[in-house]
Amino acid sequence: MSKLKAVLEKIKPIDGSLLTATQIRLDNLTKPRRSLGKLEDFAKRIVAITGKKNPQLSRKVIFTLAADHGVVVEGVSAYPQEVTAQMVYNFLNGEAGINVLARHVGAEVVVVDMGVAAELESHPDLISKKVGLGTRNFSKGWAMTREEAVISLEAGIEVVESINRERPIDILGTGEMGIGNTTASSAIAAVITGKPVQEVTGRGTGVDDEAYVGKINTIQKALELNKPAPGDPVDVLAKIGGFEIGGLAGVTLAGAANRIPVVIDGFISSVAALIAVELKQEVKDYLFAAHESVEIGHRAVLDRMELTPILDLDMRLGEGTGAALGMGLVEAGVRILNEMASFDEAGVSGVGS
Amino acid sequence: MSKLKAVLEKIKPIDGSLLTATQIRLDNLTKPRRSLGKLEDFAKRIVAITGKKNPQLSRKVIFTLAADHGVVVEGVSAYPQEVTAQMVYNFLNGEAGINVLARHVGAEVVVVDMGVAAELESHPDLISKKVGLGTRNFSKGWAMTREEAVISLEAGIEVVESINRERPIDILGTGEMGIGNTTASSAIAAVITGKPVQEVTGRGTGVDDEAYVGKINTIQKALELNKPAPGDPVDVLAKIGGFEIGGLAGVTLAGAANRIPVVIDGFISSVAALIAVELKQEVKDYLFAAHESVEIGHRAVLDRMELTPILDLDMRLGEGTGAALGMGLVEAGVRILNEMASFDEAGVSGVGS
Repeated sequence: MSKLKAVLEKIKPIDGSLLTATQIRLDNLTKPRRSLGKLEDFAKRIVAITGKKNPQLSRKVIFTLAADHGVVVEGVSAYPQEVTAQMVYNFLNGEAGINVLARHVGAEVVVVDMGVAAELESHPDLISKKVGLGTRNFSKGWAMTREEAVISLEAGIEVVESINRERPIDILGTGEMGIGNTTASSAIAAVITGKPVQEVTGRGTGVDDEAYVGKINTIQKALELNKPAPGDPVDVLAKIGGFEIGGLAGVTLAGAANRIPVVIDGFISSVAALIAVELKQEVKDYLFAAHESVEIGHRAVLDRMELTPILDLDMRLGEGTGAALGMGLVEAGVRILNEMASFDEAGVSGVGS
Repeated sequence: MSKLKAVLEKIKPIDGSLLTATQIRLDNLTKPRRSLGKLEDFAKRIVAITGKKNPQLSRKVIFTLAADHGVVVEGVSAYPQEVTAQMVYNFLNGEAGINVLARHVGAEVVVVDMGVAAELESHPDLISKKVGLGTRNFSKGWAMTREEAVISLEAGIEVVESINRERPIDILGTGEMGIGNTTASSAIAAVITGKPVQEVTGRGTGVDDEAYVGKINTIQKALELNKPAPGDPVDVLAKIGGFEIGGLAGVTLAGAANRIPVVIDGFISSVAALIAVELKQEVKDYLFAAHESVEIGHRAVLDRMELTPILDLDMRLGEGTGAALGMGLVEAGVRILNEMASFDEAGVSGVGS
């Protein structure tokens, strides 16, 4: 059995009875019922996902996957392609946005080369899972072969499972870097949600009006040419996806299969999660949407997964930056469950007593 | 000159040129411009408030002020009055919601008895600034004398200034505990914003339909009887306020006067901040609204201060719980400014290069 198939079979729905049981415990803590709102929901879901009564989110890991996109030759991005590789070195130096925010919440950052269009210098903290030197230009043909799509999914699974074997991961976050990857993500979002391309296409890192129109046209051309099948997520990934998007879909699947909560970052990470969900609906149970990105397609993707974003801070950097902040808030909810006194313990009177 | 007057005179507008200068620095960091959204705004405002180029938010303090309210005899709360004192002990034991969330973001909690209706046992961590054994029932007369209102404001100022003298506070948060204090807060909100009572009155800790109608009627009766003057915040505080609300207004003023950023919690803390703002408009420059509470009057109060809440997590616990989480996010923004590499430092190409 293939690794992908094995992981998909391993993913089971969460035990809903743990949600109810945990709400009862939360209702006994010294606060009016439900007065900590979504923090209480976070705690309940983490208990149900992990099956642990008092889960500790000690090991927090953000997976930041990088790859390049052949479609950039169409002028869809404001930045040159070499920025992908440059940013990978920036991650490894610990000085990018994701490094700062991961440190702030006590998370590690795992950097993976899924297919940057350059041979990167080796570095002890860089994991190489290179599927190719960037995808091909999907406005002229498929982005990758179906086999490469499966390889990228399985690479993401392998990275999580190998790190989880060393020392168990308590919660993971997804993030990415790849010049051109909002173009691939908008294309995937359009196919899977069925929305018109212009409704799910934003300005990415900040293209001007002319390039924005070009970006929409490029995606439309790619969809007409390649005809990705909405019901076949691997076909969609192969025809109009990216190596880091496939890798992150794999990371998401591996999280769900290993009962590790997955905090998804912004638009691109959410598109990757959507591929995972389309492969197996039960994946939804394991997901937290960290924030609502400025990218206009994000909401449609979250809606399709029935997820409500935790934060709305007008962010659109990617890398896992939103996931880091979201993870800190999910942990806050878990700590409430683990550390707050009950009415009995604290000798506090309840309602109407 | 009185302490209150001295503090009001000390409050100056922030230096707007620092906002612009800091945005330029943020634009040089390795990210598309403005892609960290509100985190960038937090960093800019902290620089402008403190006047420090690279501020460190090392000492974070949440001021949780407690007091009782005579109006509870009208049946406006779901909980008995003794809960205020019981919760103070819970805070001192470190096991209430605010303790957990403050620990999570690395903040201290300072607990102040502003007027709990019981003689509390002394405790090394309890600051006593008792103005009285709870306010009087403001549906039958004034909640406190005008002198007591000034004493409560000055007590809040003293607490902040004394702790700040020991070791400088880098950022402070406001929080409260007081059975009945949403009733006082809704009354104040109605008077100052000019909104009808029912539009700014919620269910507090969770009263039933009958008690909710009673709560609105009680407030309406109090306003008709006492006729608080909207243009005179001390009059409003005296007639329909609370000792912890006055104390928190003082804490807010002391923050602004000492150039300490103030993260305000939910509805009650925001009403206290509103009193401070009505006393001196420049206070607004120093405020961050941590979250949008479930209490329906909260938005009107924030609108009046032109503040947008950072979080919306359906919380309504008070104590400073929202302020703690908001503070963690403000700090995230400051760390971005202090710790991220610039394009030059990281050797990353900029737009179109």
